Amino acid sequence: MPNATDAKQLVLDFCAAWDRRDVAAILTMLAPDIVYENVPRHRMQGLAEAEAFIRPIVEETIGIELRMDAIAVADDGCTVLTERWDFLHYPAGTVELPIMGIFVVENGLITQWRDYTDGATAGEQFARVGVKLVLPQR
Amino acid sequence: MPNATDAKQLVLDFCAAWDRRDVAAILTMLAPDIVYENVPRHRMQGLAEAEAFIRPIVEETIGIELRMDAIAVADDGCTVLTERWDFLHYPAGTVELPIMGIFVVENGLITQWRDYTDGATAGEQFARVGVKLVLPQR
Repeated sequence: MPNATDAKQLVLDFCAAWDRRDVAAILTMLAPDIVYENVPRHRMQGLAEAEAFIRPIVEETIGIELRMDAIAVADDGCTVLTERWDFLHYPAGTVELPIMGIFVVENGLITQWRDYTDGATAGEQFARVGVKLVLPQR
Repeated sequence: MPNATDAKQLVLDFCAAWDRRDVAAILTMLAPDIVYENVPRHRMQGLAEAEAFIRPIVEETIGIELRMDAIAVADDGCTVLTERWDFLHYPAGTVELPIMGIFVVENGLITQWRDYTDGATAGEQFARVGVKLVLPQR
């Protein structure tokens, strides 16, 4: 059975990499076959699609804070559930998103990441600061 | 420190009461000062507002299934995080919602419940089956 402490620490380290806006560190914690979803609308499959979505956010922001309000590991030892506020500071203003997210950690890498938030609220805020997200084209 | 097993079991019992469409059992597990939010749009404060929202859903459905895909208790022993699919079967069709929810259990009752899902997706589905939710008027 995986070590629950390791899984939780990896998720904390992952969020800390976002806070540092360290895109290289973020990507090294994702598995090559990562499935990253903003449920239910956007599904990124594989590291290249995840990077295409993540890199512009990190590079266009001037500051990021993923404030962890709750974190817990399921009995399987590898599934980590979080409640967060994600603050993305752009030159034109800040996007503030109340989020719950779930991460599955296998062999020291994140293989699944699903974030749940209200899409309209997020869309309005990104539009307000003039940011267009890079979404996979299907 | 609260007993984490008790908190988790209460949330499982609470979801089982939904599955039985047992509104009395649902309400007995909520604290009088419950704060129940469908983040970020709807905030029900107190048992009367929670009941006004919950009772019509339970009574108008012909079947309910809260499918628990992941559940975990935070280190505080009283905060329970879940990932679920909520299936609400109405005569005109089924509302299917991918949800993450967080519950705070204190003294054997749920004092906080926050569900995170995409509001537009939920709204479209409730409209499709002809259901109007009862939301608090501010």
